Amino acid sequence: MIKIAPSILSADFGRLAEEIRKVEEAGADYLHIDVMDGHFVPNISIGPPVVASLRPQSSLVFDVHLMIEAPERYVAAFAEAGADILTVHFEAARHLDRTLRLIREHGMRAGVALNPATPPGMVEYVLPLVDQVLVMTVNPGFGGQKFLPEVVPKIAGLRRMVERQGVGTDLEVDGGIDPETAPAVVRAGANVLVAGSAVYGAADAAAMVQRLRAAGVGK
Amino acid sequence: MIKIAPSILSADFGRLAEEIRKVEEAGADYLHIDVMDGHFVPNISIGPPVVASLRPQSSLVFDVHLMIEAPERYVAAFAEAGADILTVHFEAARHLDRTLRLIREHGMRAGVALNPATPPGMVEYVLPLVDQVLVMTVNPGFGGQKFLPEVVPKIAGLRRMVERQGVGTDLEVDGGIDPETAPAVVRAGANVLVAGSAVYGAADAAAMVQRLRAAGVGK
Amino acid sequence: MIKIAPSILSADFGRLAEEIRKVEEAGADYLHIDVMDGHFVPNISIGPPVVASLRPQSSLVFDVHLMIEAPERYVAAFAEAGADILTVHFEAARHLDRTLRLIREHGMRAGVALNPATPPGMVEYVLPLVDQVLVMTVNPGFGGQKFLPEVVPKIAGLRRMVERQGVGTDLEVDGGIDPETAPAVVRAGANVLVAGSAVYGAADAAAMVQRLRAAGVGK
Amino acid sequence: MIKIAPSILSADFGRLAEEIRKVEEAGADYLHIDVMDGHFVPNISIGPPVVASLRPQSSLVFDVHLMIEAPERYVAAFAEAGADILTVHFEAARHLDRTLRLIREHGMRAGVALNPATPPGMVEYVLPLVDQVLVMTVNPGFGGQKFLPEVVPKIAGLRRMVERQGVGTDLEVDGGIDPETAPAVVRAGANVLVAGSAVYGAADAAAMVQRLRAAGVGK
Amino acid sequence: MIKIAPSILSADFGRLAEEIRKVEEAGADYLHIDVMDGHFVPNISIGPPVVASLRPQSSLVFDVHLMIEAPERYVAAFAEAGADILTVHFEAARHLDRTLRLIREHGMRAGVALNPATPPGMVEYVLPLVDQVLVMTVNPGFGGQKFLPEVVPKIAGLRRMVERQGVGTDLEVDGGIDPETAPAVVRAGANVLVAGSAVYGAADAAAMVQRLRAAGVGK
Amino acid sequence: MIKIAPSILSADFGRLAEEIRKVEEAGADYLHIDVMDGHFVPNISIGPPVVASLRPQSSLVFDVHLMIEAPERYVAAFAEAGADILTVHFEAARHLDRTLRLIREHGMRAGVALNPATPPGMVEYVLPLVDQVLVMTVNPGFGGQKFLPEVVPKIAGLRRMVERQGVGTDLEVDGGIDPETAPAVVRAGANVLVAGSAVYGAADAAAMVQRLRAAGVGK
Repeated sequence: MIKIAPSILSADFGRLAEEIRKVEEAGADYLHIDVMDGHFVPNISIGPPVVASLRPQSSLVFDVHLMIEAPERYVAAFAEAGADILTVHFEAARHLDRTLRLIREHGMRAGVALNPATPPGMVEYVLPLVDQVLVMTVNPGFGGQKFLPEVVPKIAGLRRMVERQGVGTDLEVDGGIDPETAPAVVRAGANVLVAGSAVYGAADAAAMVQRLRAAGVGK
Repeated sequence: MIKIAPSILSADFGRLAEEIRKVEEAGADYLHIDVMDGHFVPNISIGPPVVASLRPQSSLVFDVHLMIEAPERYVAAFAEAGADILTVHFEAARHLDRTLRLIREHGMRAGVALNPATPPGMVEYVLPLVDQVLVMTVNPGFGGQKFLPEVVPKIAGLRRMVERQGVGTDLEVDGGIDPETAPAVVRAGANVLVAGSAVYGAADAAAMVQRLRAAGVGK
Repeated sequence: MIKIAPSILSADFGRLAEEIRKVEEAGADYLHIDVMDGHFVPNISIGPPVVASLRPQSSLVFDVHLMIEAPERYVAAFAEAGADILTVHFEAARHLDRTLRLIREHGMRAGVALNPATPPGMVEYVLPLVDQVLVMTVNPGFGGQKFLPEVVPKIAGLRRMVERQGVGTDLEVDGGIDPETAPAVVRAGANVLVAGSAVYGAADAAAMVQRLRAAGVGK
Repeated sequence: MIKIAPSILSADFGRLAEEIRKVEEAGADYLHIDVMDGHFVPNISIGPPVVASLRPQSSLVFDVHLMIEAPERYVAAFAEAGADILTVHFEAARHLDRTLRLIREHGMRAGVALNPATPPGMVEYVLPLVDQVLVMTVNPGFGGQKFLPEVVPKIAGLRRMVERQGVGTDLEVDGGIDPETAPAVVRAGANVLVAGSAVYGAADAAAMVQRLRAAGVGK
Repeated sequence: MIKIAPSILSADFGRLAEEIRKVEEAGADYLHIDVMDGHFVPNISIGPPVVASLRPQSSLVFDVHLMIEAPERYVAAFAEAGADILTVHFEAARHLDRTLRLIREHGMRAGVALNPATPPGMVEYVLPLVDQVLVMTVNPGFGGQKFLPEVVPKIAGLRRMVERQGVGTDLEVDGGIDPETAPAVVRAGANVLVAGSAVYGAADAAAMVQRLRAAGVGK
Repeated sequence: MIKIAPSILSADFGRLAEEIRKVEEAGADYLHIDVMDGHFVPNISIGPPVVASLRPQSSLVFDVHLMIEAPERYVAAFAEAGADILTVHFEAARHLDRTLRLIREHGMRAGVALNPATPPGMVEYVLPLVDQVLVMTVNPGFGGQKFLPEVVPKIAGLRRMVERQGVGTDLEVDGGIDPETAPAVVRAGANVLVAGSAVYGAADAAAMVQRLRAAGVGK
């Protein structure tokens, strides 16, 4: 079944607890938390103190996406702050195998994110260590960007790789996902969808979560 | 008169708007906003999207303290997000004179922060461009640290420098300020006090703001 | 038809306008402008002020090759200076997809350069955004180096990739190109040739341009 | 006597040899060559290949100002290219003493440049190794900026330091120097003046050189 | 025949000469020297002065493995110190082709090391310049780590690539190699085995070297 | 009394235990251990595994001098390896106050080293946290360099600062110290002398240690 992960970037930062409760009640599976350091990406968003502050206020799976350089430096801090899934960028993790193992040793699920230009083959040799590949369908750094359809074939390529290796890796897609773009990525093999304004901006968030989750039905 | 600047780091990030309203009603002058990039300091806190989200929800002066490398890269973003004062670290700003002018060109007041080890003379040649010197009385990166009394003489040195040059620069102090430590820094010449847990954790925030503001009275 | 792009590195920097006029009159298509920052490559050459100074003095296509780190920082400056094509190195552009889009948004054609060791597959997922792949047949940083024949198969691989994707991407080759080496790269699929000393040092520049352009004829 | 050093940044890069000849004939003492790497300053200008190309075309003293990071890496290259004076920035040279000695070992005169914010005391312990202190009266990176009068006291401070130590260090000033600003810096103790547009843009360059040189007369 | 390369990391640094003599007498082929800079890997080990000090005390082939950033900076120093083979990490060498040529120009054999996560295709275009590919079967930085069996297929892939290209490149394996793990990597195509504690900690070092060398016999 | 600290850089790395025993028996007080990372200085020497290997073989005070960038990253590793004194460079430690406290929290004595060009005032505000200031009388990175007499006044300045503040900070001097240069630095206020080849190369090491220790007697 398709999992839905509303991105915190689209929430009102003045009342996060309430916003998160809303998406949780709407049936979301994960809270996608975008961490940016102003170096790997040209924006700074939020970090461990915010995650730790929110942790006792929600039972959603905290799906933390590190858009930061040398992410191995912050694995322990995010584990302590309450992350459930920790995803690092291939382009930022020089010792990717070690970092993924470190994430798991801290009791979290380990993810690798790929920028739009990065070929899927870059993760072929670590796939058994990866609980989730996060395929970026926008260039990371800002919310509200337009979906890049050129990336869809990469999702399909990753799905084949996952099946060939017989691993259970999830394929999460992040960037411009809404009811129009979701079906293509689900058909290509994605099973976790990050949604930003589509959910937070919806008149009926629960209906929107349902609609996104049904994206690939009957594909 | 002494200005009080509660630090956002001590607030509950799940309900920032409410927390900020509380300190505003308690009589605080500034909201001190701690921005950390995980490179200049070993922590990541919050950035422009959070500031922009809070801006319409408060009329406090937004006193943004950039604990980030190469802060000139984010001057425009924080201006647009709604900062009123933008303070950069001496230790992070290679072209300090240019960065201070850039902050003012963007319509904000310009500050320079000094780590505990940094001598006051480092800002002597830019003081006419500086609206506020922020003297760190803890090492930046985390809330809730213990006040370093060794730094007090530096405040006095800066106050003398300000008077000698006849400029109106404010002296703000950040780190472990509470009713016990405030009198010493005010006597040394500080006129803006950042307070974290002292205010947010107080049973009566307004009384605490009053107490801090009165720190130097009768000195 | 094969396009010829004499490299400015081989010109006399004391009289660039005249040198450029010479190659323009000799029938060259592009002026290949080598920008080096002393960090990505171990040499510093020329930058935006030089390009801007030359722009009104020539109507050649300015084919600017950025051998610099984090090239996204200088896209706007080179657009304003008058570049027509802007090529960034794969090895230097962490967010390659974003950078290529940014180049096009500034009204220039977008290129990606590959070091001799870099596999062609690295650009497979951005090819629709690439107007020109620049295949280095020397290691970038200096003029006058010897052609590396080991790179020729990569050109052929890229040509097949371009055809498979049905995109119109040009394949430019840079490094040690002269009448002896040109036929092999043209046969492999190159259609833009950078030439340095071969053209500037020629007794008859127009004849040399003709000879290079005819490299693949009858292949 | 005051030395005049026209900056190459204000010349026409299409005909540098001619431009340089013009200032040489106008009586200039040095050619001030601004080298920028796009990292230490936000601009890329020219590097060793340009200097080497110009060297045989002029007998002016080549006064090379390195606005680059880790300048020790390029000392040998600029010596070989024909620099006579090589100036590095205090803010970019971590092992300043070593770098200055290295410059002298390569047969050049050694300079240290100070950004507007940098206190003069930073060079006190290397002054015996310094042939020239370059006091920036603009923030480095671009030509044509406005003179910063706040820096003048620093020139005076450096002059006193030079006299106290009994060394023969020259004091060069760079940024917005013209007949209006020159007298103040000369009175403060400067004896080498970098001039950009003031000289290249002058109807009568020789008269302008004269005027600048006479700046402090009768002070 | 399989070559054995005991790693210096497992030796007693108080009596290196004696330790090295021991492995030499035990029949080892190479001395594997692990150089770490504390930046590419999270540990600092030894550098050129140590290698130079040991060089006259042993006739073993010095197989130097650079776990350092920008390794091109230290090629000359290690050549002078007495290295016979110099291996750089793919992940640390931006201009890999140039660096490999530079190593050979200094009279050493050139190697490329691959982190566990790095796909074998990354060296396909430089293989003719590579005397040795070093496949890491642990994440580099520390001795005594556990063998990662997931890497074995990469060895096989590299062996096929070597055969397809008809080059004589050695395949060295480093990390957790002992009599239990050696057979699998030898069967996959490795022909040089780095061994650490397995050899230095052995009661009978010569017997252990024999056993490792025989790993693939009868495969 | 003057303490003598022979530098490990001048020892034979093939038999360190024996070399160290020799200087211990000769009456040395400290073993000065030079750690270089190839980034802060242009050389790589030795790191934690070497220190840990030597620790059980000597009872000398291990006086570890970190010539590395961002030294805070390695405080724990050197504490565990057995360092007694840990000295970091001012030029490499952005949060100097924090790093010094961190060293002490790990049970070591804390030192700050100053490059030849660095003014003494840079440590004025952390002196109460500093057990030892290490004044470099050569530029760090290599053994066997010539003493720079220009640095002597800085030692005197630091001695006055120590006395003015009433702290017990030791003043250690490193670089070219031998019986000829020692008297000047001792007279200026140094009380710990690093000696390299002077001790290891001496026919009678004990006599040399005596001679150095007596340097300032009768001053």
